Amino acid sequence: MAIEGRSDAKAGQRIRLGMVGGGEGAFIGAVHRIAARIDDAYDLVAGALSSTPEKARRSGEALGLAPDRIYDDYETMAKAEAARPDGIEAVAIVTPNHMHAGPVIAFLGAGVHVICDKPLTVSLAEARRIEAAVAASGRIFALTHNYTGYPLVRRMREMVAGGELGTIRLVQVEYAQDWLTGPTEASGNKQAEWRVDPARSGAGGALGDIGTHAFNLSDFVTGLDVAELSADLTAFGEGRVLDDNLQIALRYASGARGSLWASQVAPGNENGLMLRVYGTRGGLAWRQENPNQLFWSPLNEATRIITRGGPQSGAAGGRVTRIPPGHPEGYLEGFANLYSEVALAIKAARDGGEPPEGVLFPTIADGVKGLAFIEAAVHSSRSNGQWVKP
Amino acid sequence: MAIEGRSDAKAGQRIRLGMVGGGEGAFIGAVHRIAARIDDAYDLVAGALSSTPEKARRSGEALGLAPDRIYDDYETMAKAEAARPDGIEAVAIVTPNHMHAGPVIAFLGAGVHVICDKPLTVSLAEARRIEAAVAASGRIFALTHNYTGYPLVRRMREMVAGGELGTIRLVQVEYAQDWLTGPTEASGNKQAEWRVDPARSGAGGALGDIGTHAFNLSDFVTGLDVAELSADLTAFGEGRVLDDNLQIALRYASGARGSLWASQVAPGNENGLMLRVYGTRGGLAWRQENPNQLFWSPLNEATRIITRGGPQSGAAGGRVTRIPPGHPEGYLEGFANLYSEVALAIKAARDGGEPPEGVLFPTIADGVKGLAFIEAAVHSSRSNGQWVKP
Amino acid sequence: MAIEGRSDAKAGQRIRLGMVGGGEGAFIGAVHRIAARIDDAYDLVAGALSSTPEKARRSGEALGLAPDRIYDDYETMAKAEAARPDGIEAVAIVTPNHMHAGPVIAFLGAGVHVICDKPLTVSLAEARRIEAAVAASGRIFALTHNYTGYPLVRRMREMVAGGELGTIRLVQVEYAQDWLTGPTEASGNKQAEWRVDPARSGAGGALGDIGTHAFNLSDFVTGLDVAELSADLTAFGEGRVLDDNLQIALRYASGARGSLWASQVAPGNENGLMLRVYGTRGGLAWRQENPNQLFWSPLNEATRIITRGGPQSGAAGGRVTRIPPGHPEGYLEGFANLYSEVALAIKAARDGGEPPEGVLFPTIADGVKGLAFIEAAVHSSRSNGQWVKP
Amino acid sequence: MAIEGRSDAKAGQRIRLGMVGGGEGAFIGAVHRIAARIDDAYDLVAGALSSTPEKARRSGEALGLAPDRIYDDYETMAKAEAARPDGIEAVAIVTPNHMHAGPVIAFLGAGVHVICDKPLTVSLAEARRIEAAVAASGRIFALTHNYTGYPLVRRMREMVAGGELGTIRLVQVEYAQDWLTGPTEASGNKQAEWRVDPARSGAGGALGDIGTHAFNLSDFVTGLDVAELSADLTAFGEGRVLDDNLQIALRYASGARGSLWASQVAPGNENGLMLRVYGTRGGLAWRQENPNQLFWSPLNEATRIITRGGPQSGAAGGRVTRIPPGHPEGYLEGFANLYSEVALAIKAARDGGEPPEGVLFPTIADGVKGLAFIEAAVHSSRSNGQWVKP
Repeated sequence: MAIEGRSDAKAGQRIRLGMVGGGEGAFIGAVHRIAARIDDAYDLVAGALSSTPEKARRSGEALGLAPDRIYDDYETMAKAEAARPDGIEAVAIVTPNHMHAGPVIAFLGAGVHVICDKPLTVSLAEARRIEAAVAASGRIFALTHNYTGYPLVRRMREMVAGGELGTIRLVQVEYAQDWLTGPTEASGNKQAEWRVDPARSGAGGALGDIGTHAFNLSDFVTGLDVAELSADLTAFGEGRVLDDNLQIALRYASGARGSLWASQVAPGNENGLMLRVYGTRGGLAWRQENPNQLFWSPLNEATRIITRGGPQSGAAGGRVTRIPPGHPEGYLEGFANLYSEVALAIKAARDGGEPPEGVLFPTIADGVKGLAFIEAAVHSSRSNGQWVKP
Repeated sequence: MAIEGRSDAKAGQRIRLGMVGGGEGAFIGAVHRIAARIDDAYDLVAGALSSTPEKARRSGEALGLAPDRIYDDYETMAKAEAARPDGIEAVAIVTPNHMHAGPVIAFLGAGVHVICDKPLTVSLAEARRIEAAVAASGRIFALTHNYTGYPLVRRMREMVAGGELGTIRLVQVEYAQDWLTGPTEASGNKQAEWRVDPARSGAGGALGDIGTHAFNLSDFVTGLDVAELSADLTAFGEGRVLDDNLQIALRYASGARGSLWASQVAPGNENGLMLRVYGTRGGLAWRQENPNQLFWSPLNEATRIITRGGPQSGAAGGRVTRIPPGHPEGYLEGFANLYSEVALAIKAARDGGEPPEGVLFPTIADGVKGLAFIEAAVHSSRSNGQWVKP
Repeated sequence: MAIEGRSDAKAGQRIRLGMVGGGEGAFIGAVHRIAARIDDAYDLVAGALSSTPEKARRSGEALGLAPDRIYDDYETMAKAEAARPDGIEAVAIVTPNHMHAGPVIAFLGAGVHVICDKPLTVSLAEARRIEAAVAASGRIFALTHNYTGYPLVRRMREMVAGGELGTIRLVQVEYAQDWLTGPTEASGNKQAEWRVDPARSGAGGALGDIGTHAFNLSDFVTGLDVAELSADLTAFGEGRVLDDNLQIALRYASGARGSLWASQVAPGNENGLMLRVYGTRGGLAWRQENPNQLFWSPLNEATRIITRGGPQSGAAGGRVTRIPPGHPEGYLEGFANLYSEVALAIKAARDGGEPPEGVLFPTIADGVKGLAFIEAAVHSSRSNGQWVKP
Repeated sequence: MAIEGRSDAKAGQRIRLGMVGGGEGAFIGAVHRIAARIDDAYDLVAGALSSTPEKARRSGEALGLAPDRIYDDYETMAKAEAARPDGIEAVAIVTPNHMHAGPVIAFLGAGVHVICDKPLTVSLAEARRIEAAVAASGRIFALTHNYTGYPLVRRMREMVAGGELGTIRLVQVEYAQDWLTGPTEASGNKQAEWRVDPARSGAGGALGDIGTHAFNLSDFVTGLDVAELSADLTAFGEGRVLDDNLQIALRYASGARGSLWASQVAPGNENGLMLRVYGTRGGLAWRQENPNQLFWSPLNEATRIITRGGPQSGAAGGRVTRIPPGHPEGYLEGFANLYSEVALAIKAARDGGEPPEGVLFPTIADGVKGLAFIEAAVHSSRSNGQWVKP
C-alpha cells in the first residue's frame, strides 16, 4: 500500500523554534513539541518555559536547550533571540490564556512568527489588540485549534464547500468531558486549577476551554456566519465561578440553525467532540474519539463510512495524511498537521513566496472570532438567554 | 439459557379489544395490532377502522372481524359495543391527532378502557377536557409513548430513581429523522400529508410527532420537573407551516439543565432517538436504534455496556423482557410491553383489584404534560425564545 | 413513512396449529408461539406440551387450550387430531433433539404439516428416515433455522445470488456464546442440562446447538457446496463429553475457503453470530446482535451501512419487513418471518396451489445437510482434523 | 487533565541512528523515521537508503544527511560508521525481507544496535544465523512488531499475566486487508510487487506480511506455547504463487485452542487486526483500527470499555501513553513506543546498566519464533493441513 500525502523529505532547512510556557508540570507544551517534531520541520532551540526562573532552567536543560538560550522571561528572550543571527524564526506560546497577549505581541514585534495555543486570549478587546499587532508585524500567526488538522475534518469542509450537502440547514456540535464532575480543582490538579480561575482563563470556563474548540470546528467546516446566539452557561461544581457546562442555540445569517453543547461534568465522556452537519442533499457525522471515520449520508442513499485515506476521502484530507487507511492517525498527527502547514507558510515566507496551494491553518481572524463568541455567549447567558450577535 | 420475565401463559381470558382508525393505508394501526398480539392478552373483535365507510368495511373484513362489529364511525361503535354483553373492554385509538378526543371521550363514556396513540390531542385545552373525562369515567387510560416500553429505558429510570447517578445535572435528548428532508408531503405520502397539516396535527409538526416522544422519554427516565423552556422551531421545507426542526433548552426546577433536539430534516437519521443523562455520580447513554445496549459510566470507572437481560440489567427491565440477552428485542416488543402492562391493569380492574407491583405505562397525566410542553414550546418560539413555563 | 412489506391483513383463515413440547420450564416453545402470533396467521389449538402428563395438562390450560385437545403424548395427539374435522393443519415440534423424529414422522403420517426446531435430529441416519417420511407424505416440512428469517440475511443472499460480490472467495462465520463458561449444567439450568447430554443432543454439543445455525446461515447466504471440512471439537468444561467449542476449516467445491467458529465458553459473547462473505467484487458483514444493519463494501468504494428497510435494502428483505428503518426489528420478528412464510405455503397448499413467489424457509434438505455437517465434523475431529466430505 | 506516562524530557543525549533502506518510493522507512522522532530520543545521521546509488544519494539529501554519511551500500556504511568517533549507535533495517540478514549481521559485527523490520528474514535457517550473530555481538536487537507498542495491547498482556482472565482457553486472532483483492501487483504498486514475490518475501505471502503480526500479537498477549498448528494457505489472485489468504488452527501446549485468519483479499478490511482472548474468568476483545478501546468482559458481569489512559487501563499501558484518554493515539505512537523502549535499553547499555523496569520490545527470539511459525504453516499447508509443531 503506497503511502500518500506528506513525507519527511525536507526541501529546506528546519525552522528554528522557541517556546514560551510548557515547562515542568505543564500539559499542552509537550503536545506542541511532539507536534513540531512529527514531520521534522522544526528544531526547538530556545525557551522561556516557566514563570519561575529555576523551573525554567531545569525544564530547558531537560529539553537539551543550550544554556544561553534558556530564558527567565519572554521579554528577555524576544530581545535576545532577535539579536542573534541564528535567532528563532517562530515561537510557540503555550502559557495559560491570560498570558498569551504579552509574549505574542513581543515576539511579533521582534519579527518572529507566532504559533499560539487557543483561546487567543481572555477578552475580545485584547484579541483586537493582538490582531492589530499581527497586521502591523507582517508575521505569520497561527492559532492551534488543532481539531482542524484532522484529515477527515478537512474532508468535511471540502464536501460542504463543494456543495455535496446542498444548502446547510443544521449544525449540531458538542464537546463533552467528565473530568470536572467532582471537585478536581481541589485535588491538586494544576490543569483544573487555572481553568476554573477567571483571572487566568477569562470569562469562559468550559466555554473558553472546549466550547471555543467546538465553535471553531463548526465554523471551519461550514463557513457559516453566526447571526445571533442564545446561551445558558452553568457552573455545577460547588464553588465554581466559571461555567462547567453550556448550551448555546445558534442562528446563522443564512437561516440555518445550530446547537452547541459543551460540558466538563458529563460522566463517561473523555473528549466527546462530535460534529454533525445536515443539508438539503446529505448529512455528515464525525466523532473526534475515532477520527479516522466519517459518516456520510447522501439523501436517500445508504450511509457511507469514509475512512481517512480510503475511498472518497478527498484531496484536502489526503494532503495531511501520512499512513494508509486502517492504521489510525490520532490527536498528535492532527496537531502536527497544523505545525506542518505553518512550516510550509514560513518556508515560503523565507523566500518571499506564497505558501503552496491548500495550506490551511487557523489564524488571528479565528482567534478574534473565538473571543467574540465567548463574550457574546457570556453576555447572552447573563441576560437570561437573550439573542446576541457575536 | 433460561427465559426470564413474562411468558404467554394466561392467568385469565384475553381482553376484548376494539380499534378506531388503522384501516387501509394507515401505519400505526398495524403496529398496535402486532403489539396487542405478541403476548396474547387481547382479541381484536371490533373496529371503526376508517372514516370512509367502504374502506372501514374492507379493512374490517381483511382483519377477520365479524360483520356486525365493523362500524362506520366510532359513535355507533361505542354505543353498540356498550350494549353487547360481549362488548369490547378496551379500545385502541389510532387516528390522526385531531381525531383523538372524540372517540376517547365517547368510549370512556361507554365504560371502555382506552389505549390512545400519542400525542394525546391537538391542544392543551382539549387535553384537559380528556383528562376530566378520564377522571369521571374511572376507566384506565394509556398513552402509547412506546419508547417507555423498552426494558433498558425502564432500567435507566430505575437507576436514576435508585440514586445510582447521584444528583442529575444534565439531560440531553434528541430525536432525529430524515424523511421530510425533501418535499415528501407532495409525493403522495399519506403519513407526511397529515403530519405537516396544522388542522390534523395541531400546533406542533416535528414537535408533536417526535419532539413529544423525546420529551416523554426524558421525563419518564428522570422524573425531573421542567421549570421553563426556551424553544426555536423552524420550518425548513418549502411551504411548510409547521416546524420540521426544533431546538429546546430546558431548565429543571432542581437546577438541572437539558437540551432537546428533534428534526425530520437530518439526512442519515432514521429514528435517531437518543437519551443521555448525567449526574454527580455517573452517566447513562441509550440509543433507540440499538435498544438492547445501555452505556453506563459510573464516575471514574470504565463504561459498562449493559445488555437487555444481561448482568446489571435490573428488575424493572427484566419484568418486560421475553428472550435472553444477545437475541435482540425491538420496537414491536417495546410497544407490546405497553399493551401487556395495560392488560395486567385491565385484568386487575376486572376483579376490582390493583395491578401487580411494577406495572407501568404512560397515562393521561403524561398526555396533558405533553400538550403543555408543545404549547409552551410554540409560545416560546413565537416569542423569540423567551423562557416559558410549561 | 409508509410501512412496507407484509401486514396482518388475512386473505384466508388462520391455520390451526398444534405443539409438541414447549410446556413449563421450556424456552424455545414460547418463542415459537410468539413467532406464530406476530403476523396472526395461526391459532394454537392443541398440544402435547410435556412428557409428564400432569405438566402437559397444566401447561395446556395455562395456554387456554380446550381440555380435549391437551394430550399426554404426541401419538395420541396425532391420531385424535387427524380424526377431527377441525383438527390441526400444522404442528410445531419443540422438544429436545432426540425427540424430534418420533413426532415429526407421526404427524406427517397423519397428514399434518410440520414445523420443527433445529437441529433436525440426532443422527444423519435418522435425518434420512425423516427425509423419506417427508417425501412420502407430500406435506410441508419447515426447519426453524430462524436466522434465515432476518430481512438483511435475505438481502445478503440476494446480493450474492445477483453477483454483486463477484466470485465468492471467503466465508467467515462464527457464533460465540458464554453461558457454558462455568459449570452451568450443574446449577439446575434445564437448558444446559440437556444440551451437554449426548443422549438428548446427539453427537454435537455446541456443534449441534449453534454450530449448525452458523453453518446453515453461511449455506443460506452463499449457496456454496462444502467439498470437505477439517474440525477440531473441544470440551473445555470439566466433565463435559460434548464439545463446547469448535473450529472448522471449510473448503468449498468452487475453491472458496471458509472458517466456522462456534463456542459456548467465550465470556462477553451472548449470541455473537456473525457472517462475513468476501468475493472478487465486494464484501459483506452482518452481526445478529444488531441485525438491522448490514455492512456492504463494494471493492474500492467506501463501506455502506444498509439498514433494514432503508436504501439498497432490496426486495427479498423488504418482503419480510414490517416497520420502517430505524425502528429495530429483532429475533422474534425474524423467527415470525419463518412462521409467516410457512403459512403462505400452507395456505397455498389448502387450495392445491403454489406459494407466492419469493416464499422461502429452511426445509428437510437443510435438516439433512445439517446432520451431515455435524457427523462430518465429529468424524473429522475424532480423526485429528482429517479432511472429511460432509 | 494531567498527562501521564512518558514525556520528551531527555535524561541523556539522543541516540545516533542510521537507516538501511527506506529511500524514495519506500513506505515503512518513513514510518520508522517518524516513530524515532516522536519521543525525541534519536538523531538520524547516516543511511544507505536505496540499492541504487543515485537514489540513495538523493534520498539521503532529502533527509538532510551529511554528504559523507550517505552511503551506496550497507557494507561500506557499517565499516565507515564503526570507524567514526561519532558513528551511529543504532541502525534501522527497513529493506524487503530477503535483504535483512546481510545488514543486520554486518552492523551487529560493527558493534551497532539493530532495529529490524519484520518478519526477521525469509527462512528459519537464516533466522537462526541471525540469532547466533545477535548472541555473539552482545548488542541490542529489536524487531518492530509494532502492534505490541499499543498501550492497550500491553494492558491485555498485563491482565492475562495477572490472571484476570483465569485459565486461557481460546485465542481468536485475525488480520484482514483488501488491497490485494484485485491484481494490485500488476498496477505498478511497488509494495505489492515485492510482497507477492517469493524471492523477496520468502515462503509466506500474507503469512509473512501480516500473518506474523497476528501471530506475534497473540503470542505477546497470551504467552502461550503453540504445540501444533494446521494451516490452509491459499493464493486467490490470478497468477499468484504466494498465499494471499490463510486459515490456521492452533493447539497450545496448555490445551487451549486458537484460530488465526489473515487475508489480503477481504473487501472492506483495511487493517482489520483483531484479537480476542477467552479464559475461565473473562474475555478480552481489541481491534487495531480503534486501538484506544479495549472490551473487557469479566464472567457474568457487564462488558467494560477500557480506554487508553482511562480507568482500569493499568500500569503497563500507562508507561507508554502520552496524552489523556479521549484524545486518540494511533499507529505512529504505537510504533514510536517501540523506538522509545529500545532507546531506554540503549541508554542503559551506554552505561553498562540495565533498562528501567517494564521496558519491553520484541527481540530476536520473537523473530525466530515468527519464522518457525511461517515454516510450520507452509509445511502444514503443503501437507494438506497436517498438524505440525512450529
